[in-house]
Amino acid sequence: MTDFTHFNEHGRAKMVDISDKKETARKAIARSSIQMKRIVYENITEQKNKKGDVLSVAQVAGIMAAKQTSTLIPMCHPIPISGVDLSFEWANTENDTYELMINAEVKTVGSTGVEMEALTAASVTALTVYDMCKAVDKGMIIGQTYLLEKSGGKSGNFKRENN
Amino acid sequence: MTDFTHFNEHGRAKMVDISDKKETARKAIARSSIQMKRIVYENITEQKNKKGDVLSVAQVAGIMAAKQTSTLIPMCHPIPISGVDLSFEWANTENDTYELMINAEVKTVGSTGVEMEALTAASVTALTVYDMCKAVDKGMIIGQTYLLEKSGGKSGNFKRENN
Amino acid sequence: MTDFTHFNEHGRAKMVDISDKKETARKAIARSSIQMKRIVYENITEQKNKKGDVLSVAQVAGIMAAKQTSTLIPMCHPIPISGVDLSFEWANTENDTYELMINAEVKTVGSTGVEMEALTAASVTALTVYDMCKAVDKGMIIGQTYLLEKSGGKSGNFKRENN
Amino acid sequence: MTDFTHFNEHGRAKMVDISDKKETARKAIARSSIQMKRIVYENITEQKNKKGDVLSVAQVAGIMAAKQTSTLIPMCHPIPISGVDLSFEWANTENDTYELMINAEVKTVGSTGVEMEALTAASVTALTVYDMCKAVDKGMIIGQTYLLEKSGGKSGNFKRENN
Amino acid sequence: MTDFTHFNEHGRAKMVDISDKKETARKAIARSSIQMKRIVYENITEQKNKKGDVLSVAQVAGIMAAKQTSTLIPMCHPIPISGVDLSFEWANTENDTYELMINAEVKTVGSTGVEMEALTAASVTALTVYDMCKAVDKGMIIGQTYLLEKSGGKSGNFKRENN
Amino acid sequence: MTDFTHFNEHGRAKMVDISDKKETARKAIARSSIQMKRIVYENITEQKNKKGDVLSVAQVAGIMAAKQTSTLIPMCHPIPISGVDLSFEWANTENDTYELMINAEVKTVGSTGVEMEALTAASVTALTVYDMCKAVDKGMIIGQTYLLEKSGGKSGNFKRENN
Repeated sequence: MTDFTHFNEHGRAKMVDISDKKETARKAIARSSIQMKRIVYENITEQKNKKGDVLSVAQVAGIMAAKQTSTLIPMCHPIPISGVDLSFEWANTENDTYELMINAEVKTVGSTGVEMEALTAASVTALTVYDMCKAVDKGMIIGQTYLLEKSGGKSGNFKRENN
Repeated sequence: MTDFTHFNEHGRAKMVDISDKKETARKAIARSSIQMKRIVYENITEQKNKKGDVLSVAQVAGIMAAKQTSTLIPMCHPIPISGVDLSFEWANTENDTYELMINAEVKTVGSTGVEMEALTAASVTALTVYDMCKAVDKGMIIGQTYLLEKSGGKSGNFKRENN
Repeated sequence: MTDFTHFNEHGRAKMVDISDKKETARKAIARSSIQMKRIVYENITEQKNKKGDVLSVAQVAGIMAAKQTSTLIPMCHPIPISGVDLSFEWANTENDTYELMINAEVKTVGSTGVEMEALTAASVTALTVYDMCKAVDKGMIIGQTYLLEKSGGKSGNFKRENN
Repeated sequence: MTDFTHFNEHGRAKMVDISDKKETARKAIARSSIQMKRIVYENITEQKNKKGDVLSVAQVAGIMAAKQTSTLIPMCHPIPISGVDLSFEWANTENDTYELMINAEVKTVGSTGVEMEALTAASVTALTVYDMCKAVDKGMIIGQTYLLEKSGGKSGNFKRENN
Repeated sequence: MTDFTHFNEHGRAKMVDISDKKETARKAIARSSIQMKRIVYENITEQKNKKGDVLSVAQVAGIMAAKQTSTLIPMCHPIPISGVDLSFEWANTENDTYELMINAEVKTVGSTGVEMEALTAASVTALTVYDMCKAVDKGMIIGQTYLLEKSGGKSGNFKRENN
Repeated sequence: MTDFTHFNEHGRAKMVDISDKKETARKAIARSSIQMKRIVYENITEQKNKKGDVLSVAQVAGIMAAKQTSTLIPMCHPIPISGVDLSFEWANTENDTYELMINAEVKTVGSTGVEMEALTAASVTALTVYDMCKAVDKGMIIGQTYLLEKSGGKSGNFKRENN
């Protein structure tokens, strides 16, 4: 069985030593989403024509959250992020339910991967959309959040199937 | 149509003025989860007998994240959180897939609700489990994240059905 | 001569004790600006029709910075901000120089004023505009930054003349 | 046996619920110290006549750290600190060893005490002195750090004997 | 027309990808200032002989703010700052108005420049002086804030004329 | 006399320029401790068999604090920490007093040492134990905190004697 790496010889949590890992270009893409009723969807999309739309605020939040990842996730290494890009897509609209798909791509040239940065960016983007729309509907659901793909580093590439 | 409250007269985002809202006792409970293969499940549950198990680290991360909510979510008011409690439950185990259910309860005596604090705590708890187990499997999925219930405040109580 | 309040009996800096001050509704409005060439002005204003304009990002930055004020300014008390609103206006356009005026209004119900929060929000908003436009021109100048008015609290109201 | 309060019914850590505790004026004083050789002592005290002495920087660091306490200590409640004052005293000078005594007094009007804020301020003040003098001697020792006294709140007053 | 680089193909803000940029030694110097009446000036300069003068606190604040730049400015890359130095000079004293000139020099060995770090350090230094003197006069004005010079990096050197 | 390096030519504090220092593998080990009565000791050690024991929370706090070092210590450079490991040992038990020894080891590949990171991790670990046990006894004492050893970098190795 593959053992967890985040524990020391006393069985206690540690931040894994990556001193010997090479600095290489790495990339990770994560996805989250948020499902909402038509009324919320319409509020967001009509707002889109104005200067300060919901998605614009959420995007800034997601990018800034990527930079806070190692502050939030206890065993995460601080990493010099070299780029963050978020994109949105409306999908799965049926039964008067609308789903905003969120893709977060993070890059670094560093000694460890940026999967957590991408996942954190996607999650906080979804949370921010919830925050800004919750006055209209508290029943929104943040959908599944997962890694789409990663590349670079010793552990090799990862690409999720069926997306 | 109910309008968004997070925008000023120029259509730009603002932090809503809550100066006139009363300080009352408020509570919110949010849920998230993370789905994993049997091998990850076994690593976590066997670790549980040791001193520094995965869930213990994730719990600390979730509680600390609740306190960072207004730093992460742009239009969120800083709030004096008066209590945070997280609980875990294993569920939905079929097809060799295991799901860890995460409940986050946050309380305050303040002028606005703590839905975002509860949702943020639940999300970061799930992200931390992902981080500590990703060496074993990067394919884990953070499940739906949503508000279970809230109470206190002018907008009344909310309770999600069918949970 | 009115003495400084931020020093203890040893002549060293301290955070002034406000335990006995009443919690009252307070407001402060600060102003900053940024001056730029026509080419930057046109880039910003044409961008305004798109979804993620410069001012929208700067506005989010200013609001989030208001919440970080007591982290940045050493002797500043942590304060539960109850509202932040920023507005922009183009002005002083002559000699092909354009100036973006930034007004930041911050409110609280607390034991001390929010002048620093308003000034910090205005400053960081201007800095963010600089950051996003510096690829076009590094010669932009952040204009004078000052308090326009404050109200609430024992020290009375303040209103700047000639603005 | 008095039980710990920081654990929920599953035996996991939680942030204790203080929603029902009254907001009252509270104070805590903590002490730390740092022991050093004569050469470091002389560097610090001669520097004292200049504008940016070591103790002045350490004092600012201690005050700012008090405001970060709930970010650093996982189960600590965020608290609106209403005052911080630090004082220094040289003591115990024998065998060419000098000890800088650090007293940190923190006040709040809140629902829980500020012992941790005072202890954190004292610790970070000592750490900062170490940082600024370590080029001269890495062998400095941060002395015992403890609570001198606290007052206010339900649990009553505390005053350390023999100090 | 030179286009902005901070936007993706959807017209939304992104953190520019600098993965391919070389790590080189870079430097930036920014200037800010704060104008005040004679009474404030005298309070500051007389305080200068004591241990905890205003400028000493402001200097620490500016240095610490430089390290928070990427937390404050949304699209700013986290950068390993290798040095920060601030200097003060009194100038432009006429009509009983005194102006404190603030120069902030920041260095890095990194993949992108430190203009924003220098500008943020200068701004927060000025804001801190305002905070510590506002009990005497709320009418102080933070003067123009701008980049004096930068060197290193692909985009070449920049040096402001007429300073 | 060896001069302090943290001051500029005006006698004011600066962050030392390390642009020319090489990036090398570095390590530092620091120690702290906390002394407590038998009742606290028993509470902690009996808890150890449960899932969320005191030491587990303190360990997470110490690791996360290592990452905040440059935010807390004014003249400290931000450093890409590559590993953190904490260990505990019970010692010096006499007169019904128990002492928990805390060792913090921090590694980096960087341009400056990680002594402050190790000392900060050890201190915050001790502070967290205090926080979680103070409901039982506020009289606990955080013991001496010091550097055990460091290696790597130009200034050579350091190893404390008699430990």
